[in-house]
Amino acid sequence: MDAIVRLVVRGAPALGAAGAYGVALAMVQGDREGWDSGRLNVEIDRIRNARPTAVNLAWAVDRVRPFVSDGVDVVLAEALRIADEDEVANRELSRKGADWILANTTHRPLRVLTHCNTGSLATTAWGTALGIVRELHERGEVEMVYADETRPLLQGSRLTSWELTQDGIPHVVQVDGAAASTLLRGLVDVAIIGADRIARNGDTANKIGSVGVALACSAAGVPFVVAAPSPTVDLSTSSGEDIEIELRDGAEVTHFHSELVAPVGARGFNPAFDVTPAQYISAIVTELGVVEPGEGVVMDSLVPEGERP
Amino acid sequence: MDAIVRLVVRGAPALGAAGAYGVALAMVQGDREGWDSGRLNVEIDRIRNARPTAVNLAWAVDRVRPFVSDGVDVVLAEALRIADEDEVANRELSRKGADWILANTTHRPLRVLTHCNTGSLATTAWGTALGIVRELHERGEVEMVYADETRPLLQGSRLTSWELTQDGIPHVVQVDGAAASTLLRGLVDVAIIGADRIARNGDTANKIGSVGVALACSAAGVPFVVAAPSPTVDLSTSSGEDIEIELRDGAEVTHFHSELVAPVGARGFNPAFDVTPAQYISAIVTELGVVEPGEGVVMDSLVPEGERP
Repeated sequence: MDAIVRLVVRGAPALGAAGAYGVALAMVQGDREGWDSGRLNVEIDRIRNARPTAVNLAWAVDRVRPFVSDGVDVVLAEALRIADEDEVANRELSRKGADWILANTTHRPLRVLTHCNTGSLATTAWGTALGIVRELHERGEVEMVYADETRPLLQGSRLTSWELTQDGIPHVVQVDGAAASTLLRGLVDVAIIGADRIARNGDTANKIGSVGVALACSAAGVPFVVAAPSPTVDLSTSSGEDIEIELRDGAEVTHFHSELVAPVGARGFNPAFDVTPAQYISAIVTELGVVEPGEGVVMDSLVPEGERP
Repeated sequence: MDAIVRLVVRGAPALGAAGAYGVALAMVQGDREGWDSGRLNVEIDRIRNARPTAVNLAWAVDRVRPFVSDGVDVVLAEALRIADEDEVANRELSRKGADWILANTTHRPLRVLTHCNTGSLATTAWGTALGIVRELHERGEVEMVYADETRPLLQGSRLTSWELTQDGIPHVVQVDGAAASTLLRGLVDVAIIGADRIARNGDTANKIGSVGVALACSAAGVPFVVAAPSPTVDLSTSSGEDIEIELRDGAEVTHFHSELVAPVGARGFNPAFDVTPAQYISAIVTELGVVEPGEGVVMDSLVPEGERP
């Protein structure tokens, strides 16, 4: 669980799979240490609530929980199924997202901006927003990727740039503050980000800095696309106002690795996510389809039929 | 001059004073090494053009240049006058800026957001945007300052936070990506930034990340105020399109201090400044007054009468 809290495991879809495996691990530990069912439930709740913003963690724990009475093998099988489904979903949403983007942009090949990491290091495999970039690259449609470095934890420069390098996709890393001017200068044709939770009206929680990219896209007339597997869409959350934003340790801001970069005693303010209002989002993509948010538009078609209200 | 290029001396007003002193230093060196006037002029041009975006550097060099034939003492006296005038201007623009802000906001005491460093470490003394914060603090009107850390060189966490700590002004440091959501969440009453060059129509070049703050202010309905001494207003630049943006070494982005934080071979994209279109600026303040930009509004009244077209 420590791996979830410290963001060793990070990215909403990866958190889901890790949470499901975590339930199996808790069962093994409980068996060894002789926990009663009350204690086991407390530990499973701890996993479920380790990170508040990404809905995938709670969703995956809730999905495997009914199988706890059937034994650890059944829980593990369900966890594996969650991971497999995530990869299949990522491949499919990448195709759908790439289709939508090619239909809604004109410059070829495309110049893409992305924020944080949404590749195979944030999911079980392939990626969401970065999965779309990969799909576009395989189709020969990517000229350049502008990767925001994504302070404070630098997922962009550490992870996204690494994945793009591995795939041979041309890219540059820029500071988060550069995103707005890169967009306003006409250097970008589409911005694609992932999501930690998508509310029923389309309001989207994602890594801090995302809403700034969305505002700049809006001002520059550039499409802003959100990509996530369907479990990230939480129809029980009616709007972004109901999404809890995790406030992390201010030391992540005032320190760089272990080095203090602010004066002794200076406090950091460190919201880990922000909420982009649906009005600034051009399209939301899951494996089930694409929805263009708007007044009164709901995200129901982005989740499986059985899960709709 | 190396100090100007490497940003040891930084901040547009400080660059002006440093440039003027630099001319005096060049004269001393030329005298020692027997330069002819052609060589001296080449060296003075090198100082003048060491940084392209801030207009103050060229302005100050041009101001002392006519005195070169009068000897180094006269040039030095003029450089000292530039420095003195800068402090007087900063005090005056701080009063005018504080008055405008108090007349155009309602929450008391104020919650202020600022970007980069505009205090006594960026000017000769007192500061511009941070000078207004100091003025407001002396009037007992500051509740909290949100200081953007300002990647890549962290002027916010290294310098602004230090100055605010010295003055006992309550503040937190946040990553640049947090600015938009802090504004949209209603945590800020006014954003105040400095400027490296203000065009005649009000378009303003400032540290990378500034225009993102402006877009978020616009979306949140929060005043966005630009503060600078009058030499920063360049009436010969008609709009932001004519402002050259310095592209600095990408290694400043891919490295943190001397540590590589991106994959080996990854390229950084590092524009040092951005341009905020006048339409997103609520007020521009110099020691001579306050102008609220708008369609057809020019900045002439922000410079001394003799310098207007």
